Amino acid sequence: MAEVETLATGVLAGERRALSRAITLIESARPEHRERARALLDQLAGAERSALRIGISGAPGVGKSTFLEAFGLARVAEGQRLAVLAVDPSSPVSGGSILGDKTRMPGLGRSEAAFIRPSPSSATLGGVARRTREAIAVCEAAGFDLVMVETVGVGQSEIMVADMTDIFVVLLSPGGGDELQGVKRGIMEMADLLLINKADGALAEIAERTRAEYAGALHLFRRRAGDPEGYPMARTVSAQTGAGLGEAWEAIRALDAARRESGARAARRRAQSLAWFDAEADGAMIARLKAAPGLEAAWRDIRTAVAAGEMTAGAGVDALLASAAQHFGRKPPDAP
Amino acid sequence: MAEVETLATGVLAGERRALSRAITLIESARPEHRERARALLDQLAGAERSALRIGISGAPGVGKSTFLEAFGLARVAEGQRLAVLAVDPSSPVSGGSILGDKTRMPGLGRSEAAFIRPSPSSATLGGVARRTREAIAVCEAAGFDLVMVETVGVGQSEIMVADMTDIFVVLLSPGGGDELQGVKRGIMEMADLLLINKADGALAEIAERTRAEYAGALHLFRRRAGDPEGYPMARTVSAQTGAGLGEAWEAIRALDAARRESGARAARRRAQSLAWFDAEADGAMIARLKAAPGLEAAWRDIRTAVAAGEMTAGAGVDALLASAAQHFGRKPPDAP
Repeated sequence: MAEVETLATGVLAGERRALSRAITLIESARPEHRERARALLDQLAGAERSALRIGISGAPGVGKSTFLEAFGLARVAEGQRLAVLAVDPSSPVSGGSILGDKTRMPGLGRSEAAFIRPSPSSATLGGVARRTREAIAVCEAAGFDLVMVETVGVGQSEIMVADMTDIFVVLLSPGGGDELQGVKRGIMEMADLLLINKADGALAEIAERTRAEYAGALHLFRRRAGDPEGYPMARTVSAQTGAGLGEAWEAIRALDAARRESGARAARRRAQSLAWFDAEADGAMIARLKAAPGLEAAWRDIRTAVAAGEMTAGAGVDALLASAAQHFGRKPPDAP
Repeated sequence: MAEVETLATGVLAGERRALSRAITLIESARPEHRERARALLDQLAGAERSALRIGISGAPGVGKSTFLEAFGLARVAEGQRLAVLAVDPSSPVSGGSILGDKTRMPGLGRSEAAFIRPSPSSATLGGVARRTREAIAVCEAAGFDLVMVETVGVGQSEIMVADMTDIFVVLLSPGGGDELQGVKRGIMEMADLLLINKADGALAEIAERTRAEYAGALHLFRRRAGDPEGYPMARTVSAQTGAGLGEAWEAIRALDAARRESGARAARRRAQSLAWFDAEADGAMIARLKAAPGLEAAWRDIRTAVAAGEMTAGAGVDALLASAAQHFGRKPPDAP
């Protein structure tokens, strides 16, 4: 584990190469890598560094990259360091990523103060969630002030990102999106800030109208306990001209300050951590259980029978539970 | 379990009330209901009845209800019986359902040969998946010829529906949807049939152009092994005028016939059953494990520490695994 030690030192010193290697390690599915990744994360957790975690969601075409570039460069100009992590589990069959190209944020890509990491190319939603949570932890340990987690605006991936960030921002297009209004309800309930992008030129007026519509809709949702007046909030921005970007940042900063003051940010992080533990614990225990002597063979045999169509899935589960009963149905013997 | 017996008899006789009650039972999360639901499903599985399972996906506004109504009534007119099950996990926070209203398919709603069941109003994606799989099994036992499973066009829910049906149909609007093209890639790879709806009046020409575009895109994907020439296929339909609906049904029927002949349908069902067993088995084992004497208290204590922020989620998992080691790390004692 000397290697892990070196990697941890590099990450804590903010070294870019160590950071990249650390994230590659946590993205690996190989068991020996997993073990090292866990050891690394344990070491990094000791530093107790924390960044503001911002989730950014937006459908393709809304101008997410342009927004992140302009918003990010403004933070860099203020002397902050930021990481951008992408989450894109939208193409489960091919594993193809529609995000992930560093060249779509050329300024940030060149900046020493910014770190961009594309979405891993093939993983389940659960795998992406784990990788992203752990990548956030690594970036925090590396001393970034801001960690932005971006995702395409489709269902579960947004919930996932909202569940691992402090502030959740939804980027919208002027006018459009009426067809998805029904779907957007769940997302509006998670959003702290709705930003109507492209508020420039001919679209400026439509953007303002869209903002007013969303602001009206937001009134239907209860303010989160402890949040200042006016949140969740709808604003117009133009990533192209920069209009409204400063105000958007101010809105994020003010909300975060209020939540830190009230303890809401810490409470939210604890709740997220607990949810994360529950998911991880289940996965780890199942893996352990599947390797348990005696049970392993029974599990495999039942699976084979289900795969062959000799047993329904339900009957298989019943059989498995019956076979498991002798393993943990009563008190284990005293340890030798 | 006499009650389960009665319910099973009713379902097998195709009684509507028994069918409704059976699905209500499987939707319940109460442990004693779960147990009865499992017993019911075991009994029903014995009948070995099977329906053609068709998944239908489409974004809000694409005309899904109108399509289902027209398509379904045509099947009823041919003497078939069909069930329509809705899957809508799109609003996880409020649990509100945008599908689910029987009145949106008034003809089917009145028909003796049709059964419509809205999406359960509050459940996780996993809960919805289980309920829908089990509801399909109940409908098959009740003797329906067709089970249609409809879902809104958003990410994970489509994957879920494709994973539990024989044929997966995607309904699209003419022209629109360019913005979602990137997202649609994964869905196109799952689709057996793309139907461009609203191919009537002023939109007929645009619908045909859209069809040609999608047909071109479909060429990029490999045909599924054993599928006849021409699949996956793009066609235009008008749920309003009925144009193309007969051809769409013919395309579905021909594909299903070919897959039954080649054994591909049976193979697909076995693979689905296995995936389902894997998911269910994990859940059942975790529930069992959490109640195991000795482990239960340790698990609870660790959870409390994580919730209080005294332990990171990762450290909690490590602690849990250590505590579990004595429970299933070595051979269990011989049964008394």
